[in-house]
Order: sequence, then structure tokens, then C-alpha cells
Amino acid sequence: MLEQRVTIIGLGLMGGSLAMALRPFVRHLTAVDIDDDVNRKALQEGLVDAASPDPAEGVAEADLVVAAVPAQSIVVVLSELPAWRPDGCMVMDVGSTKKTICETMETLPSDFAAIGGHPMCGREHSGLGAATPDLFRNRTFALCRTSRTTHDIEGLALKMVECLQAQPLFLTPARHDRIAAMISHLPRLVSAALMRTAAEVDDALLWPLSSTGFQSVTRLAANNPSVMRDILLTNKTAILQCLARYEDHLSHVRTLLEADDQADIVDWFEASREEHEHYQSKRRSR
Amino acid sequence: MLEQRVTIIGLGLMGGSLAMALRPFVRHLTAVDIDDDVNRKALQEGLVDAASPDPAEGVAEADLVVAAVPAQSIVVVLSELPAWRPDGCMVMDVGSTKKTICETMETLPSDFAAIGGHPMCGREHSGLGAATPDLFRNRTFALCRTSRTTHDIEGLALKMVECLQAQPLFLTPARHDRIAAMISHLPRLVSAALMRTAAEVDDALLWPLSSTGFQSVTRLAANNPSVMRDILLTNKTAILQCLARYEDHLSHVRTLLEADDQADIVDWFEASREEHEHYQSKRRSR
Repeated sequence: MLEQRVTIIGLGLMGGSLAMALRPFVRHLTAVDIDDDVNRKALQEGLVDAASPDPAEGVAEADLVVAAVPAQSIVVVLSELPAWRPDGCMVMDVGSTKKTICETMETLPSDFAAIGGHPMCGREHSGLGAATPDLFRNRTFALCRTSRTTHDIEGLALKMVECLQAQPLFLTPARHDRIAAMISHLPRLVSAALMRTAAEVDDALLWPLSSTGFQSVTRLAANNPSVMRDILLTNKTAILQCLARYEDHLSHVRTLLEADDQADIVDWFEASREEHEHYQSKRRSR
Repeated sequence: MLEQRVTIIGLGLMGGSLAMALRPFVRHLTAVDIDDDVNRKALQEGLVDAASPDPAEGVAEADLVVAAVPAQSIVVVLSELPAWRPDGCMVMDVGSTKKTICETMETLPSDFAAIGGHPMCGREHSGLGAATPDLFRNRTFALCRTSRTTHDIEGLALKMVECLQAQPLFLTPARHDRIAAMISHLPRLVSAALMRTAAEVDDALLWPLSSTGFQSVTRLAANNPSVMRDILLTNKTAILQCLARYEDHLSHVRTLLEADDQADIVDWFEASREEHEHYQSKRRSR
């Protein structure tokens, strides 16, 4: 049982799932959502002990504040926090990018302890309705230390990760953002662009003929648009680099096809198959 | 029970799954695979009544020949078939593209009856080891009539589709290929290019941090390279058109990000989310 009073800001997919998973382990849980219907629903269902649309009220007695809103809003929360809590408190986040957020954490007054967090999991749907307590189970929970990270908040973050049945993994914010651009942010762009391309096709047989492959590759096209905007804006450089390399690969295979280069086309797909196999073996072994 | 003697050429994912699913319904089933180990395995396991690496021998007494090899090899099979069976027979295929194959079917002598087929299903792995009898269940089975399509072969094809518990859908080869380029062939390119881009990243934490989203979008990167080569070469025009439109969408969202255009980025992802929702509702209602 965690003795600390915890306030979660933002009760969407991440914040809601966090509340559900932490509920049995936290003595006092408060929700702060901009949508008061969400607060009422969380209270009615007994998901939290208190809820308010007013962040100053919601964080007033918190030992730990968890910011679970889109990345740019997390930056706003961190900037406002000293006004809401002049005496300081502990704060962590579960945002999709870490560099901008951790840099903002480092500007907090010294009464604040802060650590960056990012559970590497998700669902294609958003909002409290999509939340589930097992979202984090067996997933990697990335943790980024900052100059505001104390022994206490690191210990509390690790306890929390344990409650979620996730695996903690420490890395620097810059390394996190470079990797996340490749294995999380670019795939969402790729998936959404495919959906947008297909949606232009005006043929009634398009969807009846579509199968599990299309379903799988477009799964991330349903991502929350505000979350996506904030991911792109707060990890712009790394995402643009990955996107440029991705566009080069596409352009290369297009050139091979334009030239009817049968042998190189086979080699290209053979390499992709081998890389996929290597990736699967790494996944299985972790 | 189908009274006809059926020969399946190619016992990979498709041909193998077909043999497994048809086994209880076909009086006599023959396999022809270029790899004689596959033939022996199929015979040993009782999957077929006869098997041979020699197509002339394998089709000698067939009422129906089903070509289940990559698209360009199907064209070769159709070109050789009159030499193997001077008296003619019925022939269908289960290739991923239809225009080139159906055009070749129309060059068959008049003793041959022929219909194009394409079960809209698949798995990311290939070969007989990946075959499964329920591959076709509840899936769409595209059928393309040709000038060689008789009443008898159409009836037999429909019976076969029924045995597979699939849903038949008739359309022209050109329309099939345009749609398949969008919902099947382009997604495989997109998926493989993402795998190739990620595989270049040299960071030991890349795979530990990857989650279900990356897994989902790269699922098709493991596709059989020979199948992919033949898909690309026999549906080149439609695939290049889809790819160009896809590259335009990617380039558009890149430009929005380069310009920090927050409002248009949200609109772009909002549209992708709505299109995904529309697609899901069409899938559910079919």
C-alpha cells in the first residue's frame, strides 16, 4: 500500500488506466479532468476518492502529482504547478515524449521532486472509456531522471511501476525520444497516412475485400489527435529524421519496381523478413 | 463431397491451407510441390492422396487444377498446362493479383475451363508449416470470370468456397487489382519499409522499448519475398499509383510538422481517426 496521496491530472486512456491499476494500492486518489463529466463518472464508480476540474484544488494536498495529459499540456501543468503548490510536492508524468518535459521539470523550484515517465503501451482508442487496469502489465515503463529527481521520488516511481506489473527501464530523455520516434511515433504516422490514402478510394468493394493485414497496419490511425499533435511538436527533430529515412526506403523500393528489378526486389523483401525475424526473437527473449 | 479429382500446385501457406480445408470434402487430392520434402510430408500426414514434384504427372488425372504458387509462377503454370494436359481440364488459381493471370487464362485452348480466384486472407508467415485449415473462414474469396469461365467451373469454384466457409465475391480482374493494391499490396510495402527503417537503428534499447503498436504495423514485413516480387511485378501500375498517393500524404504531414502547423496537424489526425472509425463500422457491418 502506498501511503502517499496521489493526484492524477487527466483521466483519459493513460490517466484512467493508471487510476484503475493503482486503485487497490493507493490510500487516497484524486482526479483532475478538464471535463467535469469525467470527474463525476470516476467518483460515482469509486475509481477515485476525490475529483475536481480545478487543478489547484486537485493538487492542494497531493504528495505525488501524475500528469497524464498530452505532452504540451504536461509542460503547461509543470509551469503552473508552483502557483498551485507554493510549498512543493513530488511530480511525475506519463507523456509520450521526454526531452521537453524533463527540461521543464528541471526549471521547477527546489521544493519540487520530479521524474519523467513513459509507459510503453497504448491502445488505438482514447478516453476513460478505453482505459483498462491491465494496460501496463508486462510492458516496459521508461523512467528518465532529471536534476530534480530525489531518492524518494525514484523509490516511489519504482513502487508504482511494480504496482502496475510493468518493467522499469531508466534512460536519458534524449535517448528515449530518439527511440520512441522510431518505434512509436513514426509507426503512428505511417499507419494514419495509409488510412488517409485508402479513404480516398471511392469503391464500395474496398472494405469488403480488406483483410487482417490492412486492419493491422492501420490500427494506429485512430490515435488521439491532440496527443499526436503534442508528440510531433515535442519530438520534431527525431521524428523528421526517422520520417526522412522511411521515405528513402519507400522511394528506393519504388525505383526498384519502376525498373522491374526482380532480383533486388526479392533481396529487399528478404532483408525485411530477416529483420522482422530478428526483432521477433528479441521480443520473445525479453 | 466434391466428386472431382483436385490437384493443388504449390503447397505453401495458401496451397497447404487449401489442402487442409478441402481434405474432408474432396474424394481425391493431389499435391505438386517443387520441394519433394514437402510432398513427402503431405503424403505422410495424410493431407493428400498423391504427391509429386512433376507437374505433368500431378495434373495427369485432375478434373480441377488449383495453382497456388506466386503470381508469375501461376502464369508459367497456365502456359505449360496445355502441354501437360492436351485434353484440357478445369483450372483456377489463388494468386494475389488477377489481371495478368486472367489474361493468361483467356489464352488457354477451348478444352480448358478457367476462373480466377483470390482468398482475401493471409498470415505473416509462409510455407506449409504456417498453413491452417481455418485461414479462409469468414473471409472474402474474390472470384474473377474470364472468357474461359464455364457454368461448371463457376459452380465448382462456389462449392469450394463454401467448403472453405468463405464468402464469394465476383468482380473484374482490373477492379480486383486496383482494390488489392490499396488494401493489401501497399500495406505490405508500408510495413516492410518501416521494418527496414527501424532495423538500421543501432541501440540495444530499441526492441525492449517497442510495444504492440510497432508489432502491429510491421506484422506484414515477414511476407514471402517471392510472393511480394510477383505481386509487385504483376500489379505494377496500380501499386505505383497507390504508393505515389501515400508518399504525398506523408510528405504533406511532414510539411505541416516542419511549419509547426498545430491546427492542421490536429485536423489531419482527426480526419485519419474518423476514416478509421468509418472503416471499422463497415467491417463490423459486413
